Amino acid sequence: MLSVVIIGSGNVAQHLIKAFSVAAEINLIQAYARRPEKLAHLLPPEKITDIISELADADVYIISVSDDAIADVSAQLSFSGRLVVHTSGSTPLEILNSNNRRGVFYPLQTFSLAKEIDFSTVPICLESEFVDDHKTLQIVANAISKSIYNIDSAQRQALHVAAVFVSNFVNHMYVLGSEVSSQNNIPFDILKPLIKEVADKVTSLPPLQAQTGPAVRGDQKTISRHLDFLRNNRQLSDIYTLLTHSIQQTNEQKL
Amino acid sequence: MLSVVIIGSGNVAQHLIKAFSVAAEINLIQAYARRPEKLAHLLPPEKITDIISELADADVYIISVSDDAIADVSAQLSFSGRLVVHTSGSTPLEILNSNNRRGVFYPLQTFSLAKEIDFSTVPICLESEFVDDHKTLQIVANAISKSIYNIDSAQRQALHVAAVFVSNFVNHMYVLGSEVSSQNNIPFDILKPLIKEVADKVTSLPPLQAQTGPAVRGDQKTISRHLDFLRNNRQLSDIYTLLTHSIQQTNEQKL
Repeated sequence: MLSVVIIGSGNVAQHLIKAFSVAAEINLIQAYARRPEKLAHLLPPEKITDIISELADADVYIISVSDDAIADVSAQLSFSGRLVVHTSGSTPLEILNSNNRRGVFYPLQTFSLAKEIDFSTVPICLESEFVDDHKTLQIVANAISKSIYNIDSAQRQALHVAAVFVSNFVNHMYVLGSEVSSQNNIPFDILKPLIKEVADKVTSLPPLQAQTGPAVRGDQKTISRHLDFLRNNRQLSDIYTLLTHSIQQTNEQKL
Repeated sequence: MLSVVIIGSGNVAQHLIKAFSVAAEINLIQAYARRPEKLAHLLPPEKITDIISELADADVYIISVSDDAIADVSAQLSFSGRLVVHTSGSTPLEILNSNNRRGVFYPLQTFSLAKEIDFSTVPICLESEFVDDHKTLQIVANAISKSIYNIDSAQRQALHVAAVFVSNFVNHMYVLGSEVSSQNNIPFDILKPLIKEVADKVTSLPPLQAQTGPAVRGDQKTISRHLDFLRNNRQLSDIYTLLTHSIQQTNEQKL
């Protein structure tokens, strides 16, 4: 059985701790937190430390801290030659201190402390400096997820950009849609079945084929009416114009 | 029991025909199609007509044709004083010929011929010229959906704009995300659990609170890295810049 130490107490760290705690094939032996009380609801006191120089021996150390802190934390580790990975989507493997064998264990999902997640569906993107370590990471990943990918640092950067589009920017579209509806006394609830259906659709249909609406139809009359409706809101009309143009441009290139 | 005639054979018309065919409280007595063969898989021949001057007597006529054709079709009806509605999100009630009592019966969903839909979850937005007709439309809507809203023409225009943001523009974000991933040999499948989770989240959390990512965190380092990654793609970098700015602007206004 492989032993794991988690370093960090944030969002992702807490979800990982929960997932490993119930994984039969993994022994989560310790977690490090600067403020141990943040993990008190997840682990017994003897498994939590706030002294980074006293980490237990383990097969894998998973650093799950903010991107800016990864280099620092990895340099503070008092051992060498062990397998140390980070969980960041936008940070190269090389940020880790080279005293240890380096790797990446990136779960591609949006995590909230308030919302439970079924970790078995979360894609885990693996990268490692050494082939043998890759096998170890695969065992660790398989213990909590059914969805494992090999993604190198260059691909991971692309993936992180793609994730911003399909996640952060998508959520911002929800924000803008809810703004338009609330300003016109329309409950946001009315849009939720549509939101769900659009997301459902791309699980079975390539998004390019799923595109609907005035832009892709070339329905200039409706587009003009919408822009007229938005004429007093620069932010919304700029976005409407740019995205309408982008839909049409993409459509011309691809079809 | 109320009797209904559907005029049209497109996407929305076909989904309405399917929904009314199994609605116990509604008698779908006829459908009109210029090309009757388009409805042959849904209705027996005696219920389909291609002669608009020979429509059966009914309590409600639902015109479900392209936006541009609504005025024309409604002017061709050979009767007067009856309840006639259209199903368009972006067209005012007044487009209908005033020989008849006018109304709107707008199902707010994205429909594909290829994909079945549970109509009971589709919000139906109602508007009518006369109060009594509103009650009739409510009975008709309730027969196929659990989600009924009263939405006037001004609100419906706002709603249609909001729907473009949360549906067409969201799908375009999926298109751009899939473009970035495929160009870097990353399967789009890896992004699907994220897409699902982001859509799920706004059913329980206001979208403004659900916003995550480098823009809302003010993580300029990651934003710069992403823009550097996109530097050779004007379309993507323009969108990235505008939406990042818009997220930050919205955040400053609201929080």
